[in-house]
Amino acid sequence: MEVKVMQDILGRNDAVAARLREGFASRRVFALNLMGSPGSGKTTLLEATLKALSGEMRIAVIEGDLFTTKDADRIEKCHARVVQINTSGGCHLDAPMVEGALATLGEEPPDLIVIENVGNLVCPAEFDLGEDAKAVVLSVTEGDDKPMKYPLMFKESAVALLNKTDLLPFTNFDLARATEDIMTIHPAAKVMPVSCTKGDGLESWYDWLRGRVAAKREGVP
Amino acid sequence: MEVKVMQDILGRNDAVAARLREGFASRRVFALNLMGSPGSGKTTLLEATLKALSGEMRIAVIEGDLFTTKDADRIEKCHARVVQINTSGGCHLDAPMVEGALATLGEEPPDLIVIENVGNLVCPAEFDLGEDAKAVVLSVTEGDDKPMKYPLMFKESAVALLNKTDLLPFTNFDLARATEDIMTIHPAAKVMPVSCTKGDGLESWYDWLRGRVAAKREGVP
Repeated sequence: MEVKVMQDILGRNDAVAARLREGFASRRVFALNLMGSPGSGKTTLLEATLKALSGEMRIAVIEGDLFTTKDADRIEKCHARVVQINTSGGCHLDAPMVEGALATLGEEPPDLIVIENVGNLVCPAEFDLGEDAKAVVLSVTEGDDKPMKYPLMFKESAVALLNKTDLLPFTNFDLARATEDIMTIHPAAKVMPVSCTKGDGLESWYDWLRGRVAAKREGVP
Repeated sequence: MEVKVMQDILGRNDAVAARLREGFASRRVFALNLMGSPGSGKTTLLEATLKALSGEMRIAVIEGDLFTTKDADRIEKCHARVVQINTSGGCHLDAPMVEGALATLGEEPPDLIVIENVGNLVCPAEFDLGEDAKAVVLSVTEGDDKPMKYPLMFKESAVALLNKTDLLPFTNFDLARATEDIMTIHPAAKVMPVSCTKGDGLESWYDWLRGRVAAKREGVP
């Protein structure tokens, strides 16, 4: 019974996600679904990204959260177009929520739209939002066992950012082991060690975004 | 439709949780549901707790995880009775899973049973496991905005452990603000700043457990 219900929910979600994907394609918007645990550093990554790339591309942000607008308030201070989705306690964003938020973002299509999902290393990985790519942020303070413990998240994500590398000396996180585990789960994944507060390693991330946004603009699928 | 389905799932869960609660009461076992984000330090807290208290009380552990037995392996090294529940990707434990695990724990009732939930700051808070109390572990590296962003978790938890205080100097976590926010959400909550790796602050936690286990042994509801 529950399996059937889950299939129905995912089926309805996927129909809307397909519509979103068509919209992103026709408007040549690169859409990124940004995921990770609570406190992994998703919003701090977004703040740095907006600061670095707003001069060269139009970026819009959809912020997913249970109740508050704390993250959207931070993004707004970066002078970015941002829409808040509150899930009222729900543990992930789904495609209908994103479709509703898009309708309020205004007419002019951005080059890049980042959808910051609810802080959760499990459920968001199961829901297609019509995005072009998923990325996951894992803080080194969470421990290097997390890719193997939450494999779907890493299997789905084109990029895995290993954040808070400035705290590496104070943890037992093994960067080589985590990277190897991620590559085992997802051999094509790009693994990027970064410190979003210090700025270390972020050039690789910016370059990856630049490449994907440029390709989408040229209509490369 | 989805609301009705959720009500059915929670209704079935609560029926089993009530049965579990009766069993814990009649056998005078204090049952704790331990929750928190991935990497907040739940298993490290358990390792420290087993080391400190195994000489004075019988402790059993139920480990919840999506696929691996990594946490159960760590607990087993502490010479504790432990059963692994794998949720096969599921984002929380439910009462039927716990009932199944209990059946394999053996006849002799422990004084304390700790159920380590799936690493997730959202979904586990919604499911009653028949426990006597819930506790949440929040790492200071996750940020002091988390209680207000994930209020149900803190509303449900009798104890909030603010872990990794050894990393406080390297974060902008405001202990006073987080404590105030937790007390706003849940005025009766006990907030305990701890470092599970260094051992700081854990005596309060051990004393709280001792008190609750002793009360349960004496049949105090």
